[in-house]
Amino acid sequence: MAEIVPLRLLPPQGIEILDQTLLPSEERRVILRDLDSLCEAIRQLRIRGAPLLGLAGACGMAIAAETTDASDDSLTQASATLRATRPTAVDLGAYTGRALEAGLAAGPGAEARRSTLWAFAAKVLEGRLREDASIGRHGAQVLVPARTVLTHCNAGALATGGAGTALAAIRYAWQAGTLERCFVTETRPLLQGARLTAWELMRAGIPTTLLPDTAAASLLMSGQVGAVVTGADRIAVNGDTANKVGTYGIAVLAARHGIPMYIAAPRTTFDLACPDGSHVPIEFRDAREVGGFGNQRWAPDGVAAYNPAFDVTPAVLISAFITDRGVLRHPFAGSIRAFCEEP
Amino acid sequence: MAEIVPLRLLPPQGIEILDQTLLPSEERRVILRDLDSLCEAIRQLRIRGAPLLGLAGACGMAIAAETTDASDDSLTQASATLRATRPTAVDLGAYTGRALEAGLAAGPGAEARRSTLWAFAAKVLEGRLREDASIGRHGAQVLVPARTVLTHCNAGALATGGAGTALAAIRYAWQAGTLERCFVTETRPLLQGARLTAWELMRAGIPTTLLPDTAAASLLMSGQVGAVVTGADRIAVNGDTANKVGTYGIAVLAARHGIPMYIAAPRTTFDLACPDGSHVPIEFRDAREVGGFGNQRWAPDGVAAYNPAFDVTPAVLISAFITDRGVLRHPFAGSIRAFCEEP
Repeated sequence: MAEIVPLRLLPPQGIEILDQTLLPSEERRVILRDLDSLCEAIRQLRIRGAPLLGLAGACGMAIAAETTDASDDSLTQASATLRATRPTAVDLGAYTGRALEAGLAAGPGAEARRSTLWAFAAKVLEGRLREDASIGRHGAQVLVPARTVLTHCNAGALATGGAGTALAAIRYAWQAGTLERCFVTETRPLLQGARLTAWELMRAGIPTTLLPDTAAASLLMSGQVGAVVTGADRIAVNGDTANKVGTYGIAVLAARHGIPMYIAAPRTTFDLACPDGSHVPIEFRDAREVGGFGNQRWAPDGVAAYNPAFDVTPAVLISAFITDRGVLRHPFAGSIRAFCEEP
Repeated sequence: MAEIVPLRLLPPQGIEILDQTLLPSEERRVILRDLDSLCEAIRQLRIRGAPLLGLAGACGMAIAAETTDASDDSLTQASATLRATRPTAVDLGAYTGRALEAGLAAGPGAEARRSTLWAFAAKVLEGRLREDASIGRHGAQVLVPARTVLTHCNAGALATGGAGTALAAIRYAWQAGTLERCFVTETRPLLQGARLTAWELMRAGIPTTLLPDTAAASLLMSGQVGAVVTGADRIAVNGDTANKVGTYGIAVLAARHGIPMYIAAPRTTFDLACPDGSHVPIEFRDAREVGGFGNQRWAPDGVAAYNPAFDVTPAVLISAFITDRGVLRHPFAGSIRAFCEEP
């Protein structure tokens, strides 16, 4: 399934990434051999997506070990540098931290630390492939009654390094023969739906229809959508879900029109320390992302902008969570805690 | 108030327009001296907005009379040509038709027909200025409790030739000192909010915040919006309202968060022949508008698109209509009919 490979491990030289800022017009692969190049790639969104950033963090620690003396100080400094590139990316911080622990625990020798860190990164990648496949299988079952789905932003291979989360469910449903078409919102301001998801879906041969974000309400009213499936950036214990801005509006419209709304996510996206959506910090991004794209501007110079990266969908609007260990249904307070506390 | 002049009559030479496709980066005025140039300007959206297209239709008939023998055949042909540029634009068809009647009724002489048609166009413009000012005054009263408003698309001077509809209400509220800020959605795919409304508001000195369409739900949830005001393309007798795609989604969110939703429109936008929203024909536009803007593409080549120009907001989600003759409140079935049947 993972015919799209956004990140490949090339120990000991570094990693190879697909530069996502150039998609869909160009598929350029770049080899990153040092921490500076990797941090630049993360900051510039050449690699993005919460789970993929977790993998990138683990790889970054291996690269740091290769390009320094791999001392306690070097690795600790590298970990801080990596986290600082996207401070609100939970997986990036988590996997960078776990890699640091693994590296330090490998003993004082540089070579042992290097091989341990590469092995750790490989294990993260393997876990991603396995979890995404599992999400895909569970998602395909949930989506059997839906002949068409709507998704928002990019929760695909490009975001995880595996088969994706929401897009894994969609791919597996397509392979099972139950799905006929996938609708995708453009997802302003960064247009991940138009640039990345549409590209992934067309690559997979799935009939794809793109729509402006403004047309989602009209489409949901029209009866053409059987289900909504998105990924998530963070899921609170009560089921409130932070995801790409625009998800909340789609969820409200889906509920109004009796269309099930599914969130596909691995266990790492659930945050037991977060009781509900009011505790999720929302990242506000640069005003320049609004009123233009790339080098093209269409708004008057100097206009102020409201540009949150995420919004929070209340649990009551979510029909179920599609996870790597099965489908979580209401009441979420019990099902989410049980899922997270499983061994 | 009408410091923005999108269309100026220059009898007998033609009309001068502001090319709206170049805004906000360039304010280019173009003189149109024949019907072909005017039709091209309408098709290319150099002039747009339902009421302004009504005025353009009236002007087009005067221009046709000047540049032909002004015979019955010539005027009838010109009327058909004008209507065909935007078949679903109600005002364009209506005012072109009324101009044709006035021209034919002026007798057989070409000069009489020409002067009658210029006088008719001037009367349409004068009516627009008067009606928009009246909408502005009524709107400012309705908006007294709202310190901030959200608007969608462009229902301003650029759309009407007067002070606008929704933007007239906003301008007059600003002048009255009750309004502090106006939020504007970008309004994909043609970005009229980012390109035109933001420009008009900043021209008027009104503090303006632009947002991606995806962020409207989050903004309405945040408590920062006191009221929503938009224009309308067609209003059915029961109050169902067709407007720029995206309006329906905003209306659902506004209702959910207890924020009043106002539609500002002159009497000509109310269609007594239309019993409810299910009878409004929805124009679907070129797929190329989605997945790019101008010459810039960001979606994969050949992707299918869902691109309706309008959606329909059910009357139950609308708090009141702000018209040139006052504010219409629930139950709309009675108030709209009484308003339309006033002498």
